[in-house]
Amino acid sequence: MLNKKYGNKLCEIMINNNVDAMMIGPSIDLEFLTGFNPRICERFQAFFILSNGKCFHISPQLYFEEAGKHLDSDTEIFMWKDSGNFLDAIRSTSKKYHLDGKTIAINNTIRGIDLIDIEGILNAKFINGHDILENLRVIKNKGEIEKLRKAAKLADEVMGETIDYICPGITERDIKKKIEELFMQKGADLSFEPIVASGPNSSMPHYCEDSRVIQEKDIIILDLGCKYKGYYSDISRTVFVGGITDEEKKVYDIILRANKAGEETAKQGVKAEDVDKASRDIIKSEGYGQYFLNRTGHGIGISVHEAPYIKTGNKQILERGMAFSVEPGIYMQNKFGIRIEDIIVIGVEGPEVLNNFTKEIIVIK
Amino acid sequence: MLNKKYGNKLCEIMINNNVDAMMIGPSIDLEFLTGFNPRICERFQAFFILSNGKCFHISPQLYFEEAGKHLDSDTEIFMWKDSGNFLDAIRSTSKKYHLDGKTIAINNTIRGIDLIDIEGILNAKFINGHDILENLRVIKNKGEIEKLRKAAKLADEVMGETIDYICPGITERDIKKKIEELFMQKGADLSFEPIVASGPNSSMPHYCEDSRVIQEKDIIILDLGCKYKGYYSDISRTVFVGGITDEEKKVYDIILRANKAGEETAKQGVKAEDVDKASRDIIKSEGYGQYFLNRTGHGIGISVHEAPYIKTGNKQILERGMAFSVEPGIYMQNKFGIRIEDIIVIGVEGPEVLNNFTKEIIVIK
Repeated sequence: MLNKKYGNKLCEIMINNNVDAMMIGPSIDLEFLTGFNPRICERFQAFFILSNGKCFHISPQLYFEEAGKHLDSDTEIFMWKDSGNFLDAIRSTSKKYHLDGKTIAINNTIRGIDLIDIEGILNAKFINGHDILENLRVIKNKGEIEKLRKAAKLADEVMGETIDYICPGITERDIKKKIEELFMQKGADLSFEPIVASGPNSSMPHYCEDSRVIQEKDIIILDLGCKYKGYYSDISRTVFVGGITDEEKKVYDIILRANKAGEETAKQGVKAEDVDKASRDIIKSEGYGQYFLNRTGHGIGISVHEAPYIKTGNKQILERGMAFSVEPGIYMQNKFGIRIEDIIVIGVEGPEVLNNFTKEIIVIK
Repeated sequence: MLNKKYGNKLCEIMINNNVDAMMIGPSIDLEFLTGFNPRICERFQAFFILSNGKCFHISPQLYFEEAGKHLDSDTEIFMWKDSGNFLDAIRSTSKKYHLDGKTIAINNTIRGIDLIDIEGILNAKFINGHDILENLRVIKNKGEIEKLRKAAKLADEVMGETIDYICPGITERDIKKKIEELFMQKGADLSFEPIVASGPNSSMPHYCEDSRVIQEKDIIILDLGCKYKGYYSDISRTVFVGGITDEEKKVYDIILRANKAGEETAKQGVKAEDVDKASRDIIKSEGYGQYFLNRTGHGIGISVHEAPYIKTGNKQILERGMAFSVEPGIYMQNKFGIRIEDIIVIGVEGPEVLNNFTKEIIVIK
């Protein structure tokens, strides 16, 4: 069912931006707006909302019953069959709702190949509607923050239990499996495939393989999180096996200071880029600027990465209720990488750091 | 590294179809072609291959090291930073490789919102390249078939063990967790979120919730599969708890005959739609045609759904080495649904059914 509050707010934004319709594929965007989030599959499916508040939906036949159950009864559902083509449904909706010549904003799950096919039969102007939809949910209310807090707590626990499990001889994959198991035991789902980047693999921020065997003197980046009642957590810590070198200690200290500086800067009225700058300046001033390969953070909520993005050039003003990561890192190819990441929420009295797992150096014996 | 055989074949197809370049996002398509399949994230990343065989890649900075490791050294990598915009990399590649005015085919992981942004700065003709890429891998070789066979065997085992676990009082979610656990114990990953659709939920072919408690006299559709050495399995069975009604028995028998008719029709030289027709005709002739809501099957390999699609209107000729599901179903809203699904491979001497788990009626006592 359409959430009236968010539906009305969206229509207001659409009118202000000269958008006539939004076309939203199965996604978090759709779930947030309507509570409906069907499986993503290769069959085209999309919910449309017009700037006058009218809604309709295009559904493959095999999702028809589900769509009917989740959407308001006055949301007309245009069904297409596997023996036909979704473009027939696009034609019907265009005819009924006069989409020809209109400006239609799409969300991030509408596939390029489908857009190309639609453009072949519908003479409308398509625009990128991603920012509109993400900013609709950028301010979290009390209930949402409580869920983020609980999700962060579970992630803190799993971080600790995972570190207790690590020893030389097991593989990165073993550790990933353990993380999944630990979350399952706590009744939570993984929020994303954990990152376990050991030894030289730690220099790749989003390393996604897992065959390396943990060795004495390894450095390991652990990046994990879960989904609790629809809300995500995301934490990173870097740990050391059997010892730490002077250089590792030096870099760890820089990253820890950068992490704290970013977190302390995150207050109401500050720009997103200022938080990035606070972290980045520390890393730069120590001469490691070129090794900080990514933005300082990303928003989090019912998706793992969403607005606000904490990066150079983002002048979005931080407001109370915004939640995001602060995760500076130094990644030196063929050497090692270190990252420390927490989720924080902007409160009235400053930032609340949701992750309480220690940031002191941990050397696994 | 680019697979020379598939790379050359792709260039040949591109030339025949007047395609100047392919733009391929992180995906199975990319993995098949190059062995490289980075994490999908919101940052734009794409591999390009030109019809003359030249390749280049656009990578966010934080994936740069990974891309360099997985791609050939003569594949130039254009990097963009979080503090910038991927369109700068698009501009650079366009300038160097003269993309202006060219025809560029995209795969199914290029997002519509990114395509819109690219179209804003690059004057090229974009077309849907999905069929080209899927058909590149539609014929499986002996090694691939062996992996599909092994994946199917694991799915058969888990199907049996799952059925042994089911009893009234547990939830659909408990069963889904059990399936995941069983695959994990066998060292395999889930190929997709299992479907456990009990009671009236069984009328939704791709039902994706899981809160219902299993009750006496329930009907349950189980749809599960795993990934074994990169190759997928996918099997469905419908089971009964504590008894079966005459109507359920009648419908089960129709579906079983439809499943067998489809499988027996699947031979070299036959059209994909003929297999669909063989299954569909049996269901129609029994008066249940309107309740068979989807196509009869989908190809399978390194993705769960790929060509060939077994559906009305698909005149693709079946060839030796093609692998796909045969999964007729009857789905009656507010009553129940029944589906029986196997994976088969087209062999020289006819179809080989990879799933050997019984299709006899199972009543859980």
